[in-house]
Amino acid sequence: MGNLKGKDLICTQDWAKEDLDKLFKLAFEMKQDRFGEKYLDLLYRKQFFMFFFNPSLRTRQSFEAAATELGAHAQFLEPGAMRLKTAKSAGETIEDAAQVMDRYAFGLGIRMLEAKISAYGEADEIIREYAKYTKMPVISMAHDKFHPCQGIADLMGWMEWLAPEGKQNTGTLAEEFNPEALAGKKLLLTWSQGALCRSWCSAQEAALIASRYGMDVTIAHPEGYELDPEVIASTKANCEENGREFVETNDAEEGYKGAHVVYSRNWMSPEAYQNGELLKAAEIEKAMKYSGWTCTSDRMDMTDNAIFTHPMPIDRGSEVVDAVASGPNSCIFDVAENRLHGQKAIMAATMAGFLD
Amino acid sequence: MGNLKGKDLICTQDWAKEDLDKLFKLAFEMKQDRFGEKYLDLLYRKQFFMFFFNPSLRTRQSFEAAATELGAHAQFLEPGAMRLKTAKSAGETIEDAAQVMDRYAFGLGIRMLEAKISAYGEADEIIREYAKYTKMPVISMAHDKFHPCQGIADLMGWMEWLAPEGKQNTGTLAEEFNPEALAGKKLLLTWSQGALCRSWCSAQEAALIASRYGMDVTIAHPEGYELDPEVIASTKANCEENGREFVETNDAEEGYKGAHVVYSRNWMSPEAYQNGELLKAAEIEKAMKYSGWTCTSDRMDMTDNAIFTHPMPIDRGSEVVDAVASGPNSCIFDVAENRLHGQKAIMAATMAGFLD
Amino acid sequence: MGNLKGKDLICTQDWAKEDLDKLFKLAFEMKQDRFGEKYLDLLYRKQFFMFFFNPSLRTRQSFEAAATELGAHAQFLEPGAMRLKTAKSAGETIEDAAQVMDRYAFGLGIRMLEAKISAYGEADEIIREYAKYTKMPVISMAHDKFHPCQGIADLMGWMEWLAPEGKQNTGTLAEEFNPEALAGKKLLLTWSQGALCRSWCSAQEAALIASRYGMDVTIAHPEGYELDPEVIASTKANCEENGREFVETNDAEEGYKGAHVVYSRNWMSPEAYQNGELLKAAEIEKAMKYSGWTCTSDRMDMTDNAIFTHPMPIDRGSEVVDAVASGPNSCIFDVAENRLHGQKAIMAATMAGFLD
Repeated sequence: MGNLKGKDLICTQDWAKEDLDKLFKLAFEMKQDRFGEKYLDLLYRKQFFMFFFNPSLRTRQSFEAAATELGAHAQFLEPGAMRLKTAKSAGETIEDAAQVMDRYAFGLGIRMLEAKISAYGEADEIIREYAKYTKMPVISMAHDKFHPCQGIADLMGWMEWLAPEGKQNTGTLAEEFNPEALAGKKLLLTWSQGALCRSWCSAQEAALIASRYGMDVTIAHPEGYELDPEVIASTKANCEENGREFVETNDAEEGYKGAHVVYSRNWMSPEAYQNGELLKAAEIEKAMKYSGWTCTSDRMDMTDNAIFTHPMPIDRGSEVVDAVASGPNSCIFDVAENRLHGQKAIMAATMAGFLD
Repeated sequence: MGNLKGKDLICTQDWAKEDLDKLFKLAFEMKQDRFGEKYLDLLYRKQFFMFFFNPSLRTRQSFEAAATELGAHAQFLEPGAMRLKTAKSAGETIEDAAQVMDRYAFGLGIRMLEAKISAYGEADEIIREYAKYTKMPVISMAHDKFHPCQGIADLMGWMEWLAPEGKQNTGTLAEEFNPEALAGKKLLLTWSQGALCRSWCSAQEAALIASRYGMDVTIAHPEGYELDPEVIASTKANCEENGREFVETNDAEEGYKGAHVVYSRNWMSPEAYQNGELLKAAEIEKAMKYSGWTCTSDRMDMTDNAIFTHPMPIDRGSEVVDAVASGPNSCIFDVAENRLHGQKAIMAATMAGFLD
Repeated sequence: MGNLKGKDLICTQDWAKEDLDKLFKLAFEMKQDRFGEKYLDLLYRKQFFMFFFNPSLRTRQSFEAAATELGAHAQFLEPGAMRLKTAKSAGETIEDAAQVMDRYAFGLGIRMLEAKISAYGEADEIIREYAKYTKMPVISMAHDKFHPCQGIADLMGWMEWLAPEGKQNTGTLAEEFNPEALAGKKLLLTWSQGALCRSWCSAQEAALIASRYGMDVTIAHPEGYELDPEVIASTKANCEENGREFVETNDAEEGYKGAHVVYSRNWMSPEAYQNGELLKAAEIEKAMKYSGWTCTSDRMDMTDNAIFTHPMPIDRGSEVVDAVASGPNSCIFDVAENRLHGQKAIMAATMAGFLD
């Protein structure tokens, strides 16, 4: 039976669909009953270690709140200020550090993004090495490849808005796990220009989990902004398995047609790393040359009354115009809120075994 | 009825006097019963976000303790390490960040002082912008204009020492809210030299709240060290309303005569900012030229057995001599302690609605 | 009677042996019953302030966990980011800061190592100055001279492994305070090369507490790597009092003969500070010239089936080879775990008076 206690969450694709289903259900229940007695002491007085190799606003706030609300304590740890061996520094081995932490804590979150590594994929390797040496669950709090907590929050928000009784139609959120609300709906995941040289992690996680839950997926980007071919292949396979359509296009407008969810976000190119260095300035310069890739009201008018989604922070004006980001079809704040509830469910499942 | 739940506290002057009265009463009760059951779970498992744009010792320690003692968890957030738009950096808009935080937390403290802004008043504007976009209460943890938590702690300490049964006379603290202890007493708020180029916030808050509670107020400083004219006007108006005297003087000794409370502290000049830069070194050099503005024992002898008060940290030797700061009439540690109790009352009132 | 509430722990040598005995007993009980009701609320809603003048992984993680597990909240404070007067910076006096903190917190941990001071012994002086001005207990979280929490964790681990029913023989940990397991056993504390220019604190604490508990102590190091003569004198005196042998040698192999515990670790030379500066690069260069001071399997074969111990992080390859550090006689992870339980016992005893 129970297989989720101790299970790592590094990418939603690593989890069986029925386990994700259970997780979503719990997250929705926790949202309806935020301080309910049922959950308040699931991790009573336990530690959750948060390794922030890169800084973050939302991720820290939501994880630290999630821990508190389950009775745990989240430690905000910045390994840059510690003597840990990473891709870029000498020190203690991951094997040693991980085995010690197992003695103190019951879960380990790790955030490691582009600026801390020398090539795409390194953070994923490091996280999986921590996972190998700890017995406690390792949860990605965003890394170069994936952002499972964001993917879960995204889908919760889309279900809340797209369900027949949901916000898009009635102005109130649908309150339950409702995968049918997504099945057969079309996600447009589109690159957009921006001065932030962003990670692939949120976009790739969204493509994977949306295709897993039966959405048609269109990925649009200028030539030269391809995502990880392996992730694209998995997304395609997910679509095929569900009998849905997968499209990749270099056309900035085409994908809007008939879309139900528009996800517009900047990401870096596969050439971002050269000789072990992230060339951020060059990437930004290159990205800002594309003026025709902003999500505008006109483009939203081409969709099937689509909702606008974004993992935030938004680069307003570049990624999306204010009229869309702050418009009536923008689900961004509900998605952001779902980070909290999704992460509580993840912690309850993997650290407390609540779903086993 | 209840109007304090969700209310911001950016300056005590923004609050009705009867609400401040209630707040003081609660703070004294909480001091008498620090871990009393009545208060222990007022904010059970809730988040309080602390935005420290500038570092702090006492403010962080006392807020984080206050949160714990009410059952909450305070997150120590340093926006310098986050992707937040401030006066000096690009990034997410306050509007976006504030609305997300509302989904996670139940109160937001903000500390933003001179070094982080380019002109006096900017921090006040930014804090009020956060307050505009969040539903939760925003509490100033000191900003360029005001320091309401310090003002409340100051007055609690002065009441404890000046009440007939208080420390100045009996060596034990008066334990109750006793505004009569202050009415008609004279506060000398005097500039002093010092190498710290200090904010106006504590001094201005003290002038406002002391005048509100019926004290005579004398502000002494060298020419060129005027405080904010609007704050002076409000202080004057408060004094007039209470039939009390307001005096501003450039004489370093005059104000000591007949004083009951002496508050000696360095502050910067109105010329501290030039072309968007805080000229700290120049300010310190200028301030250190004044050798006759230290609070000495001789000067304390000119008072009506005044107590010595200071928001700390003290620049000993410059702002005040050791004999006074560590003397029998120094209430500095009791004032510092009151930061804790005052802030617990503020959080209970604004975050939990305990006084509504 | 009760004398431990409020007692500082700056070095185990400062404590009476019977108090250390009581502390060990409690630590073992807490290890057997980690989340037992008896201990869960000993420090309910109280603050423990952690002053990290130097960063740390294990120390922070274990103290913050210890506080949580007793119901307290540990504040992670980095005085480098605060306005505190230290050996290297101006600001508030320790006298002032300490007296304010007494109003908020119930215990103060301080970590201050070589990089933050200008001569050996300064950190010890500063910590004792904090202890002088606070009423609450001050606990060293490692400083230039001593590391009492490590010493306690070390001895717990050695007792667990060396007791007749312990891990060395049976593969399971002995679960009780068992000082007889150590009496008459031989500790080899040996210098080893390494690129980390390490503090004397852990080694000195180990020498003191091991000799206190009746072990024979051999300290081996190259000429020029003598530890603090006063600590050596105290260790010798401890050995004499127990009728045990104390040996200091410059031979890298001699001490292994007949050892029951091998503690191999790099430390800096007495010449590390020159003119108020820590010459780290020069120290590392000097240390790395010694190639014959690594703990190897061959050397372990010379012992009396000794266990290998280390306070971590380990500089693998220099201080010890992998085959020993990860071998069946390595107690490093159990020692690391004991930091948590030992510190819980220390906090319960000094902050809550649980042993009084």
